[in-house]
Amino acid sequence: MARETFVVIGGGPAGMTAASRVKRLKPDARVVVFERSRYVSYAACGIPYYLGGLVDSLDRLVHYPVSVFREKRGIEVYTETEVVSLEPGRAEARGKEGDFTVEWDTLLVATGARPVVPPIPGVDLDGVATLRILEDAERTRKLLEGARRVAVVGGGYIGLEVSENLRERGLEVLLFEMLPHVMPTLDGDMASYIEEELRRHGVELHTGEPVRGIRGSGRAEAVETDKGVYPVDAVILAVGVRPDTRLAEMLGLELGARGAVRVDSKLRTSMEGVYAAGDVAETFNRVTGKPDWIPLAPTANKMGYVAGTNMAGGDIEFPGVVGTAVTKVFGLEIGRTGLTEKQAREAGFEPLSVHISAKTRPGYYPGGGVLRLKLVADKASGRLLGLQAVGVEVLPRIDAAAALLYHGATVKDAFFTDMAYAPPFAPAWDPLVIAARVAMRKLK
Amino acid sequence: MARETFVVIGGGPAGMTAASRVKRLKPDARVVVFERSRYVSYAACGIPYYLGGLVDSLDRLVHYPVSVFREKRGIEVYTETEVVSLEPGRAEARGKEGDFTVEWDTLLVATGARPVVPPIPGVDLDGVATLRILEDAERTRKLLEGARRVAVVGGGYIGLEVSENLRERGLEVLLFEMLPHVMPTLDGDMASYIEEELRRHGVELHTGEPVRGIRGSGRAEAVETDKGVYPVDAVILAVGVRPDTRLAEMLGLELGARGAVRVDSKLRTSMEGVYAAGDVAETFNRVTGKPDWIPLAPTANKMGYVAGTNMAGGDIEFPGVVGTAVTKVFGLEIGRTGLTEKQAREAGFEPLSVHISAKTRPGYYPGGGVLRLKLVADKASGRLLGLQAVGVEVLPRIDAAAALLYHGATVKDAFFTDMAYAPPFAPAWDPLVIAARVAMRKLK
Repeated sequence: MARETFVVIGGGPAGMTAASRVKRLKPDARVVVFERSRYVSYAACGIPYYLGGLVDSLDRLVHYPVSVFREKRGIEVYTETEVVSLEPGRAEARGKEGDFTVEWDTLLVATGARPVVPPIPGVDLDGVATLRILEDAERTRKLLEGARRVAVVGGGYIGLEVSENLRERGLEVLLFEMLPHVMPTLDGDMASYIEEELRRHGVELHTGEPVRGIRGSGRAEAVETDKGVYPVDAVILAVGVRPDTRLAEMLGLELGARGAVRVDSKLRTSMEGVYAAGDVAETFNRVTGKPDWIPLAPTANKMGYVAGTNMAGGDIEFPGVVGTAVTKVFGLEIGRTGLTEKQAREAGFEPLSVHISAKTRPGYYPGGGVLRLKLVADKASGRLLGLQAVGVEVLPRIDAAAALLYHGATVKDAFFTDMAYAPPFAPAWDPLVIAARVAMRKLK
Repeated sequence: MARETFVVIGGGPAGMTAASRVKRLKPDARVVVFERSRYVSYAACGIPYYLGGLVDSLDRLVHYPVSVFREKRGIEVYTETEVVSLEPGRAEARGKEGDFTVEWDTLLVATGARPVVPPIPGVDLDGVATLRILEDAERTRKLLEGARRVAVVGGGYIGLEVSENLRERGLEVLLFEMLPHVMPTLDGDMASYIEEELRRHGVELHTGEPVRGIRGSGRAEAVETDKGVYPVDAVILAVGVRPDTRLAEMLGLELGARGAVRVDSKLRTSMEGVYAAGDVAETFNRVTGKPDWIPLAPTANKMGYVAGTNMAGGDIEFPGVVGTAVTKVFGLEIGRTGLTEKQAREAGFEPLSVHISAKTRPGYYPGGGVLRLKLVADKASGRLLGLQAVGVEVLPRIDAAAALLYHGATVKDAFFTDMAYAPPFAPAWDPLVIAARVAMRKLK
């Protein structure tokens, strides 16, 4: 009898977590990972900081070198190897170490997401970059070496982090966002604080201004919008990602929420023996109660854990996410969890929104700063639907709200949450508790 | 018909929150507050930082001056006024503004806690201080002016914060704790990291060494234990507090958990029309499911809110606390929520404990540091029972765990909590999630 064989396509957080999990639970099984890029287990989220120079070498973005997986964990990892054919029970791959045909018993599709390249003229010029894998980072850092003035297209997490990092390097940055506000995962009223911070740090901000094309002869020389033509030395596209379902579709897997691979709570796809996890797969939104697609590394890690456990014969469900994300733009911390007011309305709730601004220390204690919170609740039930935070020390409030949202907590539960207090850390009335108190009053 | 009259005894967080709440809900009612000290709405937790000089003036520890309550909120506040007689429907008080007799319809006992003075010789010598009200702080700061070498008796929150602050002023500090470890609200294994930090910063630590007496002729000159006699210039007693139930007992109220005034979930005492809130009252521990006494400012604030609402005819329950507390000792942050392993065992659980040590940033991102967590779970049910944290950035993990404990979450819920991630803030596997993952494995 042939050794039981598991194939994992994609060596990102979901793939490597799942592969490690399978090998741990079934040490005698054959576990094969195919990864297109040169690296596995890498931190794509660190790319903006590599561009800015805060992270000096690409190797530092790799959590574990391939050798750890190969030698310590006994996983067959093939990097720079692309799966070229996929059918039930069989995968063919080609790469630097040769061609492989593997007969698999169980498959994990963990092919992640790929950058959206907007269908505008000039995107394939030299000097235009997208950022997803570490090789992109390397190319882009080289690209920036001679640059003085750079256009960043897209005002989401990556676009903002890249803008910050390029400013820190002393470059001129023009940030283009087609929507009226940056950071569309926040409501516009909260996003406007981020826009102030960007301008204060010299980012030339163009919101509500879609890029129509990139001009240049051979090399990008200018960005064109309805309002003007802006000469630049390089263009970084950060307009979003979509699930990389090409191989999943080759296999005939059903797609679900927002074009991601449909999975059940055990992360099984529509095909027997095939699982999907990470950015390629849909997830479940505990606040809306519906499938959703929220591609983020912690979710990918946990989906990998769940998929790997189930692939190896275990039994664990992925309970879903609430949509937590944070970032930092210059001196401003930004966090969100659950639904924004806009998302709540789209999901069919009648939302109540509360804004507060509070100090993160008692008045007499030095340090801390101002934290602005927007709490969104369901008018009908009093249920907490989401929290947005900008300012300082967002993490404790966002993490506590994430835990509350996980459990379907009400605003009253949020008020009574036993948040930590001591003068060096937080005021006796924590900002989250204050926001909940205001919401309680308004819900009456 | 006489105006409906509410009397609040005690102008601390619970009393002033309740008085404000009553006046807000019943603007026409008469609301009288009696406070023994010169200040209301003050932050006793700031006293250690006043002693250390970080807070320069006592006035800064007062959240709102009396005039705000009197003029803006229409509350009759009498400071430096002591209630000398209390019977159903009637209170007599004496103070700087005269003698008062008030016929009350509804009463709140919010007399707080008072420092335990150990029954040892010499505690009434000059140069021996306890810290509870702001006047204590003033006296103690004067006392320290000529001092070079100070004994702090008691290694709980106040004792540690005072030790840190006196060291920061350049004083020699001898810290005496009768138990084997400082900070008895943590397990000994976690407390030992605090002891290292104290020693590293030059605190002369005497654990397991009860103070038998204070020597001196008229003025404290030395502290005596079984192991020696230690010459000092001043002694600060911080051996704990107990509920100040003297007036409650005069009225004949029943006492409950750990000698605090017994209350139901609406904070009603055993007597019709009489409520209790804050440090004088018992609370409900959501983790053990039993009455408990955990005197802390955020709890007092919320109990005041609940008591005030119900006194004014509203209907709200206090759902209890999980026992969250944080502090900082030199460079070490310390947090805890729920039960320690020892407390879990005492409460009848069979606890599983997990220790982890994790970085609070991805390896490639600068900043952050090491956070040590001890997670305690119930072996039988997998329920999360508590979290202890020492190191850096304890707040997000303690606050998230507090929210989880509030909802009776399991270790698996903790693992799947959608904690925030971004390189400037936290690693993709948050330390809390790592601790939960290890606990999940051990629970199998």
